[in-house]
Amino acid sequence: MAQKPSIPKGTRDFSPVEVAKRNYIINTIREQFQVFGFHPIETPSFENSETLMGKYGEEGDRLIFKILNSGDYLRKIDDNLYSSKDSNKLTSKISEKALRYDLTVPFARYVVQHQNEIDFPFKRSQIQPVWRADRPQKGRFREFYQCDADVVGSKSLWQEVDFIQLYDKVFTKLNLQGVTIKINNRKVLSGIAEVIGASDKLIDFTVALDKLDKIGEDGVKKEMLEKGIPESSIEKVKPLFNFTGTSSEKIDQLKNLLASSEIGMQGVEELQFIVNSVNEMPLETASLDLDVTLARGLNYYTGAIFEVAAPDTVKMGSIGGGGRYDDLTAIFGLKDVSGVGISFGLDRIYLVLEELGLFPETVVPSTKALFINFGEKEALYCLKAVNKLRSEGVVAELYPDNAKMKKQMGYANKRGVRYVVLAGTSEVDNQVFTVKNMHSGEQEEMNFEKLRGILI
Amino acid sequence: MAQKPSIPKGTRDFSPVEVAKRNYIINTIREQFQVFGFHPIETPSFENSETLMGKYGEEGDRLIFKILNSGDYLRKIDDNLYSSKDSNKLTSKISEKALRYDLTVPFARYVVQHQNEIDFPFKRSQIQPVWRADRPQKGRFREFYQCDADVVGSKSLWQEVDFIQLYDKVFTKLNLQGVTIKINNRKVLSGIAEVIGASDKLIDFTVALDKLDKIGEDGVKKEMLEKGIPESSIEKVKPLFNFTGTSSEKIDQLKNLLASSEIGMQGVEELQFIVNSVNEMPLETASLDLDVTLARGLNYYTGAIFEVAAPDTVKMGSIGGGGRYDDLTAIFGLKDVSGVGISFGLDRIYLVLEELGLFPETVVPSTKALFINFGEKEALYCLKAVNKLRSEGVVAELYPDNAKMKKQMGYANKRGVRYVVLAGTSEVDNQVFTVKNMHSGEQEEMNFEKLRGILI
Repeated sequence: MAQKPSIPKGTRDFSPVEVAKRNYIINTIREQFQVFGFHPIETPSFENSETLMGKYGEEGDRLIFKILNSGDYLRKIDDNLYSSKDSNKLTSKISEKALRYDLTVPFARYVVQHQNEIDFPFKRSQIQPVWRADRPQKGRFREFYQCDADVVGSKSLWQEVDFIQLYDKVFTKLNLQGVTIKINNRKVLSGIAEVIGASDKLIDFTVALDKLDKIGEDGVKKEMLEKGIPESSIEKVKPLFNFTGTSSEKIDQLKNLLASSEIGMQGVEELQFIVNSVNEMPLETASLDLDVTLARGLNYYTGAIFEVAAPDTVKMGSIGGGGRYDDLTAIFGLKDVSGVGISFGLDRIYLVLEELGLFPETVVPSTKALFINFGEKEALYCLKAVNKLRSEGVVAELYPDNAKMKKQMGYANKRGVRYVVLAGTSEVDNQVFTVKNMHSGEQEEMNFEKLRGILI
Repeated sequence: MAQKPSIPKGTRDFSPVEVAKRNYIINTIREQFQVFGFHPIETPSFENSETLMGKYGEEGDRLIFKILNSGDYLRKIDDNLYSSKDSNKLTSKISEKALRYDLTVPFARYVVQHQNEIDFPFKRSQIQPVWRADRPQKGRFREFYQCDADVVGSKSLWQEVDFIQLYDKVFTKLNLQGVTIKINNRKVLSGIAEVIGASDKLIDFTVALDKLDKIGEDGVKKEMLEKGIPESSIEKVKPLFNFTGTSSEKIDQLKNLLASSEIGMQGVEELQFIVNSVNEMPLETASLDLDVTLARGLNYYTGAIFEVAAPDTVKMGSIGGGGRYDDLTAIFGLKDVSGVGISFGLDRIYLVLEELGLFPETVVPSTKALFINFGEKEALYCLKAVNKLRSEGVVAELYPDNAKMKKQMGYANKRGVRYVVLAGTSEVDNQVFTVKNMHSGEQEEMNFEKLRGILI
């Protein structure tokens, strides 16, 4: 009967301390989402399979968790199909629902389904778990939270500016200084592809270019040649090998480089608007960096691309990302609705704050006063005080059992209780409490009003 | 390609207004959980199937959502078993994980798995969604939140007293007056079974007794006789037909009635302790009522049983419930750990507050100031002000597009914006803003400091 309990691989239990720390991050993000005018929505944990399937590529389809139909799900299956014993074919017959894989596709579905109730531009935030049947590894889980903010229904670049300010505000509030917000533009990448004359080589090109720091200019050129990018093309984009300076300086270089590409120049102009606007309203703690190697979600984004890097002192992948997608809702039949959004990587932000010791000490709420239980009459006397204190928001508790003093004090110690309150027969008779300060070890007798005074 | 978007039956999208109202309830519950010294934990959305299966009876097993294994899940299935085409037999072979059905079994699993890290008594709270493949109907969903608080590791009845206070505090904070906290005790029910000489008729007995208000004493007796409860037994528990008065008076009646039943008298004593203690610390807005017909979770609870009824003015089932279970963790191999806990029914509380108009007007955060977009230069001027205001926590926005005035004002109206701020060329030149109070319609020109003053 008894089982050795465990949880599925890639999932986690969160202890009270972990929940408190996670909520600290989530609440900080949520608060800034609100201040920036984003409205929270929530969508169901599972969607109809056809809503999700085919939206994330073949690999994505494979990683989506499918939910088995209820009841006698085999009854109506065609015998021929069944006897082929083909997992892929059977899946769509025995499973109609699937756990959400991200928050973006459900959001697109939401916008289309509720388009008549929504005022556009619609600024929505969403903080919910998602599930992926990925191979679990350090920092990668099968259940994890996404924290997203998106706007749909406007192409205004002021929104890109706003998102950069939002990143800066959240990380400033989290006291995480030295974050880099990298920015690029899909159109600039298209421009580069035009200039090197090989759209299909664009990813090879950016991947190689990204290694400049590590393998030097010669190494990068060698890799590009190996990938089949002709020397003449590499020559054309040579300025990218010395692509340094401020974002404004980089933009001037791009202008020369992409002069012949209409789409490229459009991307440069967009970058320029964003960079200039952010320069007019300096960021508090983050820095903005134009990074032409940034190509995340290449198939997906159509304009701005964002990625946030943790401070250099911490080894960690990106802690946030996002971008603009010009036709998000078209998959559900609503065309020409432009969207732009960003995401915060909760798990990685957690690891960064932990490593840098940035969680405030007060983040884990502890019991302010534990009342020792000396028996029925004394306990009632104490519980009356406890209730009055709780009404004023003080975290106070009565130890439930009349256990040995050592055990009760041990409980107080382990839970980091600030004050232990003792009331035996004589305290009850005199309507007072003996209060022990667990930090200083000092002990003092006082009436309820004084006790209340030190606890509030 | 385009699909008409929809969500699975029994699930819900929550709009920003709904999210705000739900969070208002959840945050109120969470805050009181904290003040009462409960520590939040979170467990994974899915558990290993063997953790859940067999814990909720046959009906429960059927209603648990199972997750299909990933990859080629049919490959290793025995051909004989497969060819039988038996859904029940196949399920355990193609599904190893299942969505959690409640928070209690995962909590029991958590306690056993982490017993060496936990200080007992362990007071935990947990607010997370659960999933049931139930037939959806009004107020019953396939995905819904549970809000639980439990203590394990102590048999002290002070905890029952605490939970009653906790119910009272939460509903008081929600401004929901007139709630009734019904209390009963499993041992009293066992005692009644002893006295009527028919343990197997106990449920029939309590169900019939519960109809006293509607069908009168004669009707109840008739139903009992029909269910096979002998007249002599009914005679013995006659006092229950006139079971009125205060809880203390009811306890006196039970003492006479159950005098011959040891277990019954034990239950009466427990009730007496709880009722007396609560009388010593009067509830703020709720009332406590001893209800011997209360028998929820009969197979489960071993001591106190709680259920909370909404005010009489609202037709609604229970909005909360709980009780004591003496051996919660035994299913996972940890014996003799007594637990007691309560749950809040979020969806029903929501419906009650909605019906009674008890959601505060301020529960839905709206934008305090919308800045009208008159073009690039003006927009930048405004966004600088917006950013300063946001830094101080003011919800402020710039309309992203230089759209027609009518459209921008319409957006402000629909979103319930309090102040619309206009800054055209002349305002920019004079470093001022024209501010329109959307409530009074009044319009005034002012500098940033004054604007800040009215918005903070």
